[in-house]
Amino acid sequence: MLNVKTVQETLDLIQNEFQRIEETEILPLEKCMGRILFEPIVCTQNIPSFNRSSVDGYAVRARDTYGSSDSIPVELTLMEPIKMGISPTFTLKANHASAIPTGGELPSGADAVVMVEYTEELNEGSVFIQKAAAPGNDLIMKGDDLHEGQVLFQSGARLRSQDIGVLAAMGVTHVKVLKPLRMAILSTGDEIVEISATPTGSQVRDVNAHVILAEAQRMGIQARRIGIVRDDEELIYQTIQTALEDADILVLSGGSSVGLMDQSLDVLNRLGKPGVLVHGIAVKPGKPTLIARVGQKAILGLPGHPASAFTIFRVIGKALIERLSGSTFPDTIIQARLSVNIPSNHGREEYMPIKLRKESEIVIADPLFGKSGLISLLSLADGYVRIKRESEGLAKDAMVDVVLFDTVIR
Amino acid sequence: MLNVKTVQETLDLIQNEFQRIEETEILPLEKCMGRILFEPIVCTQNIPSFNRSSVDGYAVRARDTYGSSDSIPVELTLMEPIKMGISPTFTLKANHASAIPTGGELPSGADAVVMVEYTEELNEGSVFIQKAAAPGNDLIMKGDDLHEGQVLFQSGARLRSQDIGVLAAMGVTHVKVLKPLRMAILSTGDEIVEISATPTGSQVRDVNAHVILAEAQRMGIQARRIGIVRDDEELIYQTIQTALEDADILVLSGGSSVGLMDQSLDVLNRLGKPGVLVHGIAVKPGKPTLIARVGQKAILGLPGHPASAFTIFRVIGKALIERLSGSTFPDTIIQARLSVNIPSNHGREEYMPIKLRKESEIVIADPLFGKSGLISLLSLADGYVRIKRESEGLAKDAMVDVVLFDTVIR
Repeated sequence: MLNVKTVQETLDLIQNEFQRIEETEILPLEKCMGRILFEPIVCTQNIPSFNRSSVDGYAVRARDTYGSSDSIPVELTLMEPIKMGISPTFTLKANHASAIPTGGELPSGADAVVMVEYTEELNEGSVFIQKAAAPGNDLIMKGDDLHEGQVLFQSGARLRSQDIGVLAAMGVTHVKVLKPLRMAILSTGDEIVEISATPTGSQVRDVNAHVILAEAQRMGIQARRIGIVRDDEELIYQTIQTALEDADILVLSGGSSVGLMDQSLDVLNRLGKPGVLVHGIAVKPGKPTLIARVGQKAILGLPGHPASAFTIFRVIGKALIERLSGSTFPDTIIQARLSVNIPSNHGREEYMPIKLRKESEIVIADPLFGKSGLISLLSLADGYVRIKRESEGLAKDAMVDVVLFDTVIR
Repeated sequence: MLNVKTVQETLDLIQNEFQRIEETEILPLEKCMGRILFEPIVCTQNIPSFNRSSVDGYAVRARDTYGSSDSIPVELTLMEPIKMGISPTFTLKANHASAIPTGGELPSGADAVVMVEYTEELNEGSVFIQKAAAPGNDLIMKGDDLHEGQVLFQSGARLRSQDIGVLAAMGVTHVKVLKPLRMAILSTGDEIVEISATPTGSQVRDVNAHVILAEAQRMGIQARRIGIVRDDEELIYQTIQTALEDADILVLSGGSSVGLMDQSLDVLNRLGKPGVLVHGIAVKPGKPTLIARVGQKAILGLPGHPASAFTIFRVIGKALIERLSGSTFPDTIIQARLSVNIPSNHGREEYMPIKLRKESEIVIADPLFGKSGLISLLSLADGYVRIKRESEGLAKDAMVDVVLFDTVIR
């Protein structure tokens, strides 16, 4: 009994049926690159912590400088100079100025700095100001960079290098992050052999498990291959049950011919409630895709052809991983001009692999109309174009959104 | 004595002065994601290894089917059926056909397959063919996917998930890859304090070392922070000398005020030949950048402001890393419409941090005209726009290339 869903229905179902796995660990900042925040981070201090001069010059009250110019300077009386690293204890009086170094703290009373280039110090304990300063001139105000109470990062944010910098500036040495998701990859099918074997007859090497393992590693997942299990329902049942003990998500690879699909269906429904949620997706390639939930654990059954398995993992697997990790792995999308027509797909959403090239500054998208069984197709592709279910196809020369597989375009 | 170079001169110098570090290791395929190939990989076998049917149907000689149609089928005599996984030992004779399953091997003599849908098997040991087949019809030919002798990957290629798939298909279980580059990050400056400290006076936390560490980790580099060394020439000299013993590249962070620059210059020239190669780059931000070579080791002195240090590491540090690893880390570039004018930069190449947003399907680039000393600026930025040295500035509404810092656009 096929329970075929559209891609959108499948994505909605993933949102509704699964939830974030809240296993956390506290890591030193140096190990937090790319990790996912468990809770929001609120700024606990003002940076800078005082009003700071951004130049060498004189701290002034802006209004005392109004009308001053090169030819008609204003003369201000000097108070004690401000020293680097020491908070001034005096208040700047009207018509007074105080020498201040770059990074020095502005005294109370002052509201601007005039650069030394626009001043001339006189011998009599006063200074000529040759340029009017507006309030705030050449100052970095307290909290200008980061201010107390500001939400810096939301729960679920993935930390980039720059974010690590913001946390370092705030003095955050340890961060509570989600543990990496644990993924187990199980290959099934009597025709599948280890990659070290030399296939005979209709045997094929276990390509997909290696591709999915690498892709999971790229996404920061703690993934492992369980190996290949022959088409034996009881053996598959036992293997999955054991694997789920220390995995949050199990990927079934290779077992999606119709016969194997039916067998997997029985196994997955026996494992626990609610069992199989999706049994077939109206998508090309990749129709024979299975999604099951066993308690809080996710199971994803991938189609057998390498290009199909990869694409489905990139779209559906990614959505599952995002849901379970409470974070997003946004795709990089670039616009490119389609080099040929792509015909209609008759009611199934389609993901067409694309090879990009540049032709006099214009990025051209060449569809790879290959067979999804070809390995070479996968390696050639830079990304894919999504052709919506209701689409009549895409026309030559149309600008299309290409979702990149990697940042690397060969 | 400042030896200021343009960005292009600096990049050329990096190409000429440095070379790939040829430290290799042999890893199981499961650990090769993102790793860099030491030597090219040539395909050692044809995949598939035989001409294979891609459908259930009948193996035929295409010319025997010409002119056949629904209404005027051609009748072919059946020979023995082909079995999955067994090489046929007979030769298909003229005006004969042989039943073949999906994945079955084409017998010699045959050059096409007709799908079962376009046939009708008769009782008398013959079959009606109702559709003409061209040679090669419904076949994946030997070597169609990967063919022997084909160069699959060049030396220096970084392996993506799909590439792992190609290697798995070929039965490659172990790969000779370059060892990760080793980077040491040394912070100098009396005002720099550990991030765990509470800065007093003009002290600042060591933000840059953490940003560079994270960025290096993102690029697959084995990076470590040495810590903070106070402004003592002898101490800095000793620390760098020790660090270089197990580092391929040393990054100096924080020590690029003019006084520190001069001091670093002396230290780097004392360390070995040829010493300092670049002392200042005509770039904004980031002019006070140092590049030195000590034997085969690289030293990069970064400017002090966080946004400057990050940008210079992204442009110049990346070029050094690419050269030393003999590989490329191509930037992802997307086109966006500039929301305001960016004025001319008067003879210096400029990297303007950009925040991206979408406005009715158009990607808009907002320049962040912040001060390069602000940490928050870094975290806001999605990428940068390069303004060439000879440019008169960039006009509002121009389409510009934004180099993304990450694939993640917040």
